[in-house]
Amino acid sequence: MKMGEAGRTIYLAIIGLGGRGCGQMKTLLQMPDVKVRVVCDVYQDRIENAQTIAEEMQGFKPDGDTDYKRVVARGDIDACVVMTSWTTHIAICIAAMKAGKRVAMEVGGAGSVEECWRMVRTSEETGIPCMLLENCCYNSREMALLNMVRQGVFGEVTHCQGGYEHDLRDEIGWGDVRRHYRQDNFLNRNGELYPTHELGPIAKYLNINRGNRMVSLVSMASKSAGLKEWFKNNRPGDEVTNKPVHEGDVVTTLIKCANGETIVLTHDCTTPRPYSRGGRIQGSKGIWMEDNQSIYLEGGLSDAMDENSAPIEPHTWVSEESYLKKYQHPLWKEYEEFGLRGGHGGMDYLVLRAFVESVQNGTNPPIDVYDAASWLSITALSEMSIATGSAPVAIPDFTDGEWIHRHGEADGRYALD
Amino acid sequence: MKMGEAGRTIYLAIIGLGGRGCGQMKTLLQMPDVKVRVVCDVYQDRIENAQTIAEEMQGFKPDGDTDYKRVVARGDIDACVVMTSWTTHIAICIAAMKAGKRVAMEVGGAGSVEECWRMVRTSEETGIPCMLLENCCYNSREMALLNMVRQGVFGEVTHCQGGYEHDLRDEIGWGDVRRHYRQDNFLNRNGELYPTHELGPIAKYLNINRGNRMVSLVSMASKSAGLKEWFKNNRPGDEVTNKPVHEGDVVTTLIKCANGETIVLTHDCTTPRPYSRGGRIQGSKGIWMEDNQSIYLEGGLSDAMDENSAPIEPHTWVSEESYLKKYQHPLWKEYEEFGLRGGHGGMDYLVLRAFVESVQNGTNPPIDVYDAASWLSITALSEMSIATGSAPVAIPDFTDGEWIHRHGEADGRYALD
Repeated sequence: MKMGEAGRTIYLAIIGLGGRGCGQMKTLLQMPDVKVRVVCDVYQDRIENAQTIAEEMQGFKPDGDTDYKRVVARGDIDACVVMTSWTTHIAICIAAMKAGKRVAMEVGGAGSVEECWRMVRTSEETGIPCMLLENCCYNSREMALLNMVRQGVFGEVTHCQGGYEHDLRDEIGWGDVRRHYRQDNFLNRNGELYPTHELGPIAKYLNINRGNRMVSLVSMASKSAGLKEWFKNNRPGDEVTNKPVHEGDVVTTLIKCANGETIVLTHDCTTPRPYSRGGRIQGSKGIWMEDNQSIYLEGGLSDAMDENSAPIEPHTWVSEESYLKKYQHPLWKEYEEFGLRGGHGGMDYLVLRAFVESVQNGTNPPIDVYDAASWLSITALSEMSIATGSAPVAIPDFTDGEWIHRHGEADGRYALD
Repeated sequence: MKMGEAGRTIYLAIIGLGGRGCGQMKTLLQMPDVKVRVVCDVYQDRIENAQTIAEEMQGFKPDGDTDYKRVVARGDIDACVVMTSWTTHIAICIAAMKAGKRVAMEVGGAGSVEECWRMVRTSEETGIPCMLLENCCYNSREMALLNMVRQGVFGEVTHCQGGYEHDLRDEIGWGDVRRHYRQDNFLNRNGELYPTHELGPIAKYLNINRGNRMVSLVSMASKSAGLKEWFKNNRPGDEVTNKPVHEGDVVTTLIKCANGETIVLTHDCTTPRPYSRGGRIQGSKGIWMEDNQSIYLEGGLSDAMDENSAPIEPHTWVSEESYLKKYQHPLWKEYEEFGLRGGHGGMDYLVLRAFVESVQNGTNPPIDVYDAASWLSITALSEMSIATGSAPVAIPDFTDGEWIHRHGEADGRYALD
């Protein structure tokens, strides 16, 4: 089957209709084999807005409902897509699986480890898969790097880094005006609030839950200064400006893996800075680093360079560009021929399509319930570590020991294994 | 007094005459007011080599001795300079202070916390200061950044990073052939072995031991792969190749400060990579990052740019160059007029000169015994954290509470406060 070729038509419920929910719904409705049967949000105006958009795109108006429990129970939907606030994803995901519906959820971070376990057990007991829509796993650069790791370009991988380093002060600071839950999280929690954009790709590089697993972590938070200063400058008279901000400006998390690799995560959303996912891969043969868009490999890889490139000097960075081109992932070759679409440089389309095809084909999604549980749990675990003075915290093995022999169960072009 | 103008002549003992010891002796002997009275090493051939060098430069041959205890007790020296292997610096420093001699020591990392305490108590009881020769504190870039931090350019500083990211596999791997102690450390220890090149400048930015202090740390080590692979490729038949390597390829350390700042240190010496000290400074008004040689400040700093620079776009990196120029430290302005000399881009001369003038003037050195103890102790503390599964470890307050009100006691052009 060629990429983009229509499969069996599936009918979706979209739950959560803020900016992100509507955006992802639009991308889904660009697929000829996807229809939206019902849209759901706690705010009526958002429902009406989404109904209008969907009607224009698919030719009929989906139902609207403010109660997700009624929505997941409907007999006329194949699957649910959850795009609500961070701390509600898992509960709605569980409700959908209990109602027998496949479900995909937008990223975030778990509020407790227990809800991650409940999600895993619900999936196991019902036999219904769920998928985390970690779009960054499908980004062009991350997929080329996955390809490089798989081909041994970095040798034995020992260490990875990543971050969500995104100045979101305007977004967070105006929060309550825009019905935005981020502000609640930043005012009240202190932890690695949003780990998956960087951890998702890294977990795939390191075969987490498929021959490897994350064993323990420690987290440390700096003081809060950026958001407080923002409130003083932008909302001087407002009540929120006098509230304490609990989330540290920079939260750093160290994760140890069963096979000995370390992962460093940086959460950095409340100081002025350019965007970065702060990626880094190190192994016995070399290093890639996102922040200077460079790579360094020991010897022998001049074949990756085009004829106009300068020769590789010892201990001198080389632009990542020719390597990313040489090791472009097969999925991206196909995707470029098909034509990029959807948000965030095309990766949103790919992650949604991976979900849609897993629903159509009844296959295990490439980012499954064990990935979702272990990645999302990092938020709750990092809060525990920070709350206890950076004490080491064990990361649960959500596979009950199966990680040792588990292999990628997803097949087809969207597999990340 | 103009920079470089000769003061009272001082007579030194140089203890430790490997490559670094001889190099630093040469830089010292370029100063007209410094003479070397005695050179000391456990190897006789090194002594003879150093005597020849010194005689050529100063016109008379210094004595040679293999016993540092005899050397520090001599009545004809003003001060000692310790350039021995990492784990012997502190013991020799203590012996010198007990013999009433001012002493400066090359950097490294402590073998135990107790020896750091002994160094502090010896200095307090004898009234003799000692200085850590952390040359990176005097590098042009780090001094410009210190100037920027002091002028509030980054706002309230919340987070700093640094690393010793230096591919030393050739140096470490050939170790025993070259009488080199590094190999012992990498085969047998597992920790942040060499923290001060990055931590020194960061400690100065954050006023450590002068209104702030480091309170606790956690460390995590990746597995070892780079050095093992190097041994297999370069010394296939040798005994050392079958030995286990205990030092992880990448060791990450998180430090919390009393005033709420966090510091991340990376020790990364056994995988192929270009050199970096991985610097980063973040505050409520912006960020500087070494690896992309860039800076980002919120608004208002276009005055730092020259007329040919592109305008500053929101959330877009700007080259650090014009900022480093604008905020060049006064010491470096003077130094450029005087003329750079000595190794490592000129910073070796400055740190040695800071020591020489503190001896001549009887002043407290700018990197004093409390700095030395707290910076060097990070090595032993990180080993403790790694040994106990990344448990948090309290960092001793070597000032006994005096840090709260202590201010810079060094004066003159070499002050780092």
